[in-house]
Amino acid sequence: MLAAALAEARAGLAEGGIPIGAALYGPDGSLLGRGHNRRVQDGDPSMHAETAAFRAAGRQRSYRGTTMVTTLSPCWYCCGLVRQFGISRVVIGEAETYPGGHDWLARHGVGIVLLDDAECVALMRDFVREHPDVWNEDIGVD
Amino acid sequence: MLAAALAEARAGLAEGGIPIGAALYGPDGSLLGRGHNRRVQDGDPSMHAETAAFRAAGRQRSYRGTTMVTTLSPCWYCCGLVRQFGISRVVIGEAETYPGGHDWLARHGVGIVLLDDAECVALMRDFVREHPDVWNEDIGVD
Repeated sequence: MLAAALAEARAGLAEGGIPIGAALYGPDGSLLGRGHNRRVQDGDPSMHAETAAFRAAGRQRSYRGTTMVTTLSPCWYCCGLVRQFGISRVVIGEAETYPGGHDWLARHGVGIVLLDDAECVALMRDFVREHPDVWNEDIGVD
Repeated sequence: MLAAALAEARAGLAEGGIPIGAALYGPDGSLLGRGHNRRVQDGDPSMHAETAAFRAAGRQRSYRGTTMVTTLSPCWYCCGLVRQFGISRVVIGEAETYPGGHDWLARHGVGIVLLDDAECVALMRDFVREHPDVWNEDIGVD
C-alpha cells in the first residue's frame, strides 16, 4: 500500500518540494485520492501530504473503513484530520525523522501500522539536511 | 476582531455554503489571511474556515503571536492546525452549536477567548436545521 504514497513523495522531491506523499484508500482497497506536500511548489502551507490526499478524494459521505497511507508520521494537523473524519487506519512509512502524533491516534481508536521503510527515511533525512529551514517552516518550528 | 470572520461566514452562506468563517491576524494585529468553509462551493472537504484563512495567509516563517479568529469552535482538524503551527491564540465566536476541541488547545498552551456571539449561533443553528446532512459530512459524522 505504500507504493502510491512513495511515488507521491518522489514526485514532490522532483518538483523541488518536501518529499512527503500520501494516499487514501476506501474500505475495499480502492484508491480514493493521493497527493504530496505542496508548500514549496504552490506556496501553500495547508497542503501537507495527508491533507492533499484527503482533498483529492473529494467529498465523501463517510470515512469508515478507509486507510490513510503516508510516508511520514503525521503531524498534529494531519492527525486532527484523521481523528475528525473518522479515518479508520493509518499506515506510516517511517517515524524516525519525525515522530508525529500517531500514538495519540492509536489511543483514540485509529489503527496504526508503523513501517520502517528505508526509502522513506532516506528521502526525508536528505531533504532535512539540505533544507532545514523549509522543513522547520513546514512543522511550525521557529 | 470577529468582524472579518463573521463577514466570511456570511459570504459562505450567500454562496450556498456552510456559514463558518475565520481570519488569521499577526502579532501586530494586521490581517494575514481570511477565508470560509468551501465544502459545498468547491467540493473541497479540506477547506474548513480556519484552514482556508491559514492558506490565504501563505507561507509564514513563524506563527508566534498570531491569533486565529473563527466563528465556531474548531474541530480536531483545525485544532491540530493551531497546535502544530504554534498559533498563539484562538478567538471563538461560539461553541454552542458545536463544542470543538478548544479545551485541548487551552491545555496545550493556546490562549482561548470564547465569545457567545448571537449572530454566529444563529447562522449555524439555521444552517444545521436546514442541511443536517451537509453539516454531518463536514464534521465526519456518519
